[in-house]
Amino acid sequence: MKLRSLGERDLITAIAREFPKKGRAVVLGIGDDASVLKPGKKLLILTKDLLVERVDFFRNLHPPYYLGRKSLNVNLSDVAAMGGRPRFALLGLGFPPETETRWVQEYLRGFKRAARETGVSLVGGDISKAAEIVISVTVLGEAGLPVSRGGGKPGDLLFVSGSLGDAQAGFRLLNRGFRLGRNRKAAPLLQAFLNPVPQLRLGRELSRRRLASAMIDLSDGLSVDLMHLCEASGVGAVIELEKVPLSSEIRAFVREPLLLALHGGEDFQLLFSAPPENRAALLKLSRVYSIAEIGHLTARKGIFVVNGEKRRTRLKPKGYEHFK
Amino acid sequence: MKLRSLGERDLITAIAREFPKKGRAVVLGIGDDASVLKPGKKLLILTKDLLVERVDFFRNLHPPYYLGRKSLNVNLSDVAAMGGRPRFALLGLGFPPETETRWVQEYLRGFKRAARETGVSLVGGDISKAAEIVISVTVLGEAGLPVSRGGGKPGDLLFVSGSLGDAQAGFRLLNRGFRLGRNRKAAPLLQAFLNPVPQLRLGRELSRRRLASAMIDLSDGLSVDLMHLCEASGVGAVIELEKVPLSSEIRAFVREPLLLALHGGEDFQLLFSAPPENRAALLKLSRVYSIAEIGHLTARKGIFVVNGEKRRTRLKPKGYEHFK
Repeated sequence: MKLRSLGERDLITAIAREFPKKGRAVVLGIGDDASVLKPGKKLLILTKDLLVERVDFFRNLHPPYYLGRKSLNVNLSDVAAMGGRPRFALLGLGFPPETETRWVQEYLRGFKRAARETGVSLVGGDISKAAEIVISVTVLGEAGLPVSRGGGKPGDLLFVSGSLGDAQAGFRLLNRGFRLGRNRKAAPLLQAFLNPVPQLRLGRELSRRRLASAMIDLSDGLSVDLMHLCEASGVGAVIELEKVPLSSEIRAFVREPLLLALHGGEDFQLLFSAPPENRAALLKLSRVYSIAEIGHLTARKGIFVVNGEKRRTRLKPKGYEHFK
Repeated sequence: MKLRSLGERDLITAIAREFPKKGRAVVLGIGDDASVLKPGKKLLILTKDLLVERVDFFRNLHPPYYLGRKSLNVNLSDVAAMGGRPRFALLGLGFPPETETRWVQEYLRGFKRAARETGVSLVGGDISKAAEIVISVTVLGEAGLPVSRGGGKPGDLLFVSGSLGDAQAGFRLLNRGFRLGRNRKAAPLLQAFLNPVPQLRLGRELSRRRLASAMIDLSDGLSVDLMHLCEASGVGAVIELEKVPLSSEIRAFVREPLLLALHGGEDFQLLFSAPPENRAALLKLSRVYSIAEIGHLTARKGIFVVNGEKRRTRLKPKGYEHFK
């Protein structure tokens, strides 16, 4: 059997089965946004993302400065989804020898800038030759009061930060020849894809004030990531389509923005559930942060969408899986 | 300019310059075997190695079970060189979709076995598609009393663990068609390359009892790694060639074993310096661990070798660098 016939999710499930959570020092192991560890008194958070050229990024579309930022920020998004505070990073880089050093310099400039903005210190890493560019970033941070994917309860309200689908819309526009600096009206969409911003402050506020019952970052798309949250929490969900936040730009550039909002990945916004009694506090929070209520969790399994008065229809989670 | 014209070492130096050690929480940053961090009361150790197919390993030569072991153990060797105790690992894997799942299963079996032997818990990671197999392992551990590369003083004695050059000899034999299970007499050499053993206990004992003044693991070869230790310590060194430990197998299979012992990489043994007053304690330790005194550190910079009565000759560090 080839790996192709196995989903990425199936492989992770298989690995999680092989490596069960062991010992009191492992608070959260394989399968959440990040692992939570307790080697001493402090809760630590550890996460890693692997970015491979032509799979996770495209050199002709992604200016190296923004790729430097994004390769750190996607990890910080995992930390944000746990309500943690990032502290240290390791950087593993694999390059073809014919890579321009200028490219590497720009990449590092972006990485450094994103690290400075978020208070992260690069403390080590490794370098190798490779046939294509490979980037492996690890982030270690402090967990505070970690918010897992598994704490959602039926009746909890569902919220997302930001507007959804913008990154995927930006990716499509890049493929159609749009470029940052050349297409001003499309810039927010291009930025959403090239230069996502990790929701660290929001994640920490939700965790510190115990407002969220479960949280995940939107990397694979709302339908897939909501499925992950629901599976981990043992619940189902209903999304009210008219409440899904769409930017004016996605409405202007995309014919079916809702499809991208539901299934487009890489937004790196936060999806979280909260008990109904927290609604007032979250409404207050929405003056400072861009958050929107989009539905609720249900005892009935499965993810459903409602559109105004119309009846519920089941939503099939659909994202891009690497091995399919 | 292309990366090819830059050494791996130069690139690391450039990155270290761009990302200086910041804050009290970073005890040791870029440039040692592993970074040492102090986010709370406990000293932590963090390290990462990137293994790329056809650069760092060869699928046709390396049975996946042994590659699984080695990909974890090379990281543990960095932890050993700091005198640390490994606790947690993250695993990043990039695969071509046509990879056999059997290969992945065997790889994971090896990784799991090595993790169990060393008390390490796999707590997370990431999976991506890739054109060639890419393995990125991160290990987080406890540092205890970390031994850096930079504590060596003129007059300190130089020691190594194990026998040197075996891994490189094994690599050459594999390329000549030798295989584990088929060539019994060559097995220790093949094992040295395919299945190196991290010197965790020795590293911890040297650190706990403060016997070593500086330490590094032998990944690039004695001449290169000794240069790293000397540069970090601001000293030079003399190696007494007749004291360099050679296995009976390398003598049997290799015409010039000393060349491999000096310049062959991947032994993953420990190289450390110790004040002369620790010689007796180390002699005692040599009943339990395989360690040998091979020379001493000098105020005069540069690395020299002496052979019996003959005069010193300068040793040019020579290893394989990825980008050259």
